[in-house]
Amino acid sequence: MSQSGATEPARRGRPGYDRRGLLDASVAVFNESGYDATSVAALATRLGLSKAALYHHFSSKEEILETALGEALDGLEGVLADTRTVVPSERLAAVLQGAVRVLAAHLPSVTLLLRVRGNSDVERRALERRRAFDQEVTGIVRAAQREGAVRADVDASVATRLLFGMVNSLVEWYRPGGAEDADALAGDVLTVALDGLRTR
Amino acid sequence: MSQSGATEPARRGRPGYDRRGLLDASVAVFNESGYDATSVAALATRLGLSKAALYHHFSSKEEILETALGEALDGLEGVLADTRTVVPSERLAAVLQGAVRVLAAHLPSVTLLLRVRGNSDVERRALERRRAFDQEVTGIVRAAQREGAVRADVDASVATRLLFGMVNSLVEWYRPGGAEDADALAGDVLTVALDGLRTR
Repeated sequence: MSQSGATEPARRGRPGYDRRGLLDASVAVFNESGYDATSVAALATRLGLSKAALYHHFSSKEEILETALGEALDGLEGVLADTRTVVPSERLAAVLQGAVRVLAAHLPSVTLLLRVRGNSDVERRALERRRAFDQEVTGIVRAAQREGAVRADVDASVATRLLFGMVNSLVEWYRPGGAEDADALAGDVLTVALDGLRTR
Repeated sequence: MSQSGATEPARRGRPGYDRRGLLDASVAVFNESGYDATSVAALATRLGLSKAALYHHFSSKEEILETALGEALDGLEGVLADTRTVVPSERLAAVLQGAVRVLAAHLPSVTLLLRVRGNSDVERRALERRRAFDQEVTGIVRAAQREGAVRADVDASVATRLLFGMVNSLVEWYRPGGAEDADALAGDVLTVALDGLRTR
């Protein structure tokens, strides 16, 4: 799926957005100017569209938000679903790696997700799904601790928060096509998270 | 230094703010509603003050921002200044620990700093100081790699970003007085960052 609309909306032909292009371009505007601060009128103006053209693809600004957040959350939940048969110690590594890949592949929608503060039902449902994701990961860390594969002297929920603090911070600086590709980055995250920076 | 004004401005006597209390209360409002989105008039209303009372302590909204960002940056730069004679491997640990403590002690102003996007000269100067801080830490990681104390298979600037991604993410969930105190948290960050979660 092309992300190009998210980073260079101005280069797309106006008003030739399809639903995908409109979604990407809208998310880029939300990430730049803030979702709450962007009215439908302002969004349409920024995209060089009439409000009617925008409403042709989405019934409301909130539907755009919900679609983008759903994409990010579906990706993250997919990582959990795909690893349910893996033993906890290996599953933790697979989940971290998968989360970095989802973040890299859906950078704009994950960025939007991480800024959600719960100001509407759509946002609250997204936060609820994020919480469920975090809880399942905490359960994986706890199971890996019981297995003896993960150190038990860091609380599982603190460890999960620190790990995803590191993963989520990638939205601040990671840009697809840069010096570091997503797989190399996932490898670096796993190295720091699981083995630490100190040599032995 | 009391942080109480930052979390419970409403309990303070109106209009009895001193400069410190006004700063803390203003930063709390900026963090909640956004600095750009908060006009001086809106800020004064939220604090139950007249604009004149606000201007008694600060010449502008920007002076409040500059003071708060300066406090956060002074704290972080102080950690570097205090550790300049320490060998790189130990200095990296000391800097991470110090950064967690500064974040815990100045949570509202560090939160504000991390949201700065460079929309004014004050913000651009703050970003410049953050960049200089990051560069000095990257230099410490690189020196520790040369010393052989830190693994060399993760690029020093990626490692620094991942470490501070973890540290900075604490603003999302750490609250003073909670279950985890700042020193325990700094210990957990050091454990994950330097030793990793995997048992050996």
